[in-house]
Amino acid sequence: MTDHLVEGVLAGDRRAIARTISLIEDNGAEAQATLAALHPHTGRAHIVGVTGPPGSGKSSLVNALALYFRRGATGERGEGGSPKTVGIIAVDPTSPFSGGAILGDRIRMRDLAGDPGIFIRSMASRGSLGGLAWATADAVKVLDAAGFELIFIETVGAGQAEVDIARTAHTTVVVEVPGLGDDVQAIKAGILEIADIFAVNKADHEGADHAVMALRMMLDLDLGGTATVLHHGRLMEVVRTVTGGEEPPSQGPLPPARPSAWRPPIFKTIATRHEGVVDLATAILAHRAYLEQSGQLVQRERERAAAELETIIQQESLRRVLACAQGEKLAALIDRIVRREIDPYTASQHLLGG
Amino acid sequence: MTDHLVEGVLAGDRRAIARTISLIEDNGAEAQATLAALHPHTGRAHIVGVTGPPGSGKSSLVNALALYFRRGATGERGEGGSPKTVGIIAVDPTSPFSGGAILGDRIRMRDLAGDPGIFIRSMASRGSLGGLAWATADAVKVLDAAGFELIFIETVGAGQAEVDIARTAHTTVVVEVPGLGDDVQAIKAGILEIADIFAVNKADHEGADHAVMALRMMLDLDLGGTATVLHHGRLMEVVRTVTGGEEPPSQGPLPPARPSAWRPPIFKTIATRHEGVVDLATAILAHRAYLEQSGQLVQRERERAAAELETIIQQESLRRVLACAQGEKLAALIDRIVRREIDPYTASQHLLGG
Repeated sequence: MTDHLVEGVLAGDRRAIARTISLIEDNGAEAQATLAALHPHTGRAHIVGVTGPPGSGKSSLVNALALYFRRGATGERGEGGSPKTVGIIAVDPTSPFSGGAILGDRIRMRDLAGDPGIFIRSMASRGSLGGLAWATADAVKVLDAAGFELIFIETVGAGQAEVDIARTAHTTVVVEVPGLGDDVQAIKAGILEIADIFAVNKADHEGADHAVMALRMMLDLDLGGTATVLHHGRLMEVVRTVTGGEEPPSQGPLPPARPSAWRPPIFKTIATRHEGVVDLATAILAHRAYLEQSGQLVQRERERAAAELETIIQQESLRRVLACAQGEKLAALIDRIVRREIDPYTASQHLLGG
Repeated sequence: MTDHLVEGVLAGDRRAIARTISLIEDNGAEAQATLAALHPHTGRAHIVGVTGPPGSGKSSLVNALALYFRRGATGERGEGGSPKTVGIIAVDPTSPFSGGAILGDRIRMRDLAGDPGIFIRSMASRGSLGGLAWATADAVKVLDAAGFELIFIETVGAGQAEVDIARTAHTTVVVEVPGLGDDVQAIKAGILEIADIFAVNKADHEGADHAVMALRMMLDLDLGGTATVLHHGRLMEVVRTVTGGEEPPSQGPLPPARPSAWRPPIFKTIATRHEGVVDLATAILAHRAYLEQSGQLVQRERERAAAELETIIQQESLRRVLACAQGEKLAALIDRIVRREIDPYTASQHLLGG
């Protein structure tokens, strides 16, 4: 079964891809085996996160970008460089209870339907803390292994879930709209730190120039040439104490010269009219080139691998503990915690045998 | 050191409380020992989550509620029932990178300063996925053990982090404002499922009645008497297969009659003028009574204990693995994952020795 799925995904079979992502959403052991088998075939795609507030037109923008990369600016196939295959994963972390994604798959299908070089999937959280971010990262792996060259992850908002998802992307595009909230709000949202590229969409609305100016001012104030600084899990901390934080990657020679730090460009777009989309698409490819030349691509890959390994260790440890413990014993233990007869740390020691 | 802190917290010493919460934010082993020692002294506070979009006036509303519970509606101490001690934890999950909380502690201190029956603390995420939710839950424990009777957790937005935080509260108040987004947006936010009480704040603004009506309609459509359904971790699933999902709590007799399901009430408030605050405060106490009488309080406590135990097992397992593995070995393993020579699942098996 796993072999069959793996073969299907590697061959680009759409039903196999869809079925594998469903397995990931269900978080089963079968998904693990499939992902393990797919892992050697990943690492080729460029992963682009697109996030922004509700109503900012992210979906339209991702559609326009996908169409451009498939067909060129005017819809003629092959224009604007060779067409790239495109995967889109639309994430709705704001509705963890609904058990199904709400975003308008059917609407966007009208634009993009029938093109075998495009795969679209919506995902919503079914699981526990942080689960959606990892399910998304795993779904990206599937599309990567299936050979999609550009993979868009589209998320709503600017909360913890979006930031976690941004960590799995190579390039993060933050979409703003004119007149939505004040400048301070954007700072509070912590979104500056994760943006590689800004798009002020709906640029025909009043206040577009003001929004661009406000973003530029904030970039000048806050990001004076600093590279993206992300917090890491404990595993990466242990590794860092050995390798040193900013060490060059251990495999292969360093690129000849380190380019100056990336300064997030800001574009005005009108996604519904496909205006500004060429510039935005070009910036995405330029950011990829920057990551490769600066050595940051490998560094991001290492950080992602460390975070992923950490999560897998935690999940696998829990699975082993639950496989050993009896349900009755666990229920009794939880009742004792609720009655304050035992604290959860001591209870954990009992279960782990330490 | 731990003993000293524990004694201090139990005595209500403010410096000991602040120091313990700082330890929790640093996620050290010392915090664990302190929390374990505090656990038997928790379980008395009523925990109220307050969430809503930026600019909805949550902080002002929490301040007004705190003042009411301390001093009564007109600021006279003792009015409206005996005064309760109040803890406030202001969470800013939208800025996981800032390393410090942004919310206006100093501003609110002016209203509430000098009252030993009030403790206020801001928290921001420093850690990994879902870390903030658990740090918040642990900080609540500290205030609970210190004897605060009512604890407010204030969060911004409606993303995964807010929902996770809502799971740690007994009563969740969702704050909306007139004219902010359309009705569909509120549904998309998945916020209906977590709300026990609604407050339409800034009710003097245009559209307040419309907002109340829209919320009422959505409640009629979507929540036809269903109790709060939360997703659970794997540990709770194992327990459920034994005890049955809706079993009565195993300790003590059942309450005589099960009251009908809670229907979230909707209040119009103007926090800055303290209007509507008495009704809101009364509803919070009524919801507590409902939880106790319906047996849901114990059920929520069990679910929370199970989720907490699950998290501790995962963290402790990771700690043990990292304590055994050498940094060099981990760094090499991560490089092999990045080079696709090994997949992270197999790497995890190596580290766990399976």
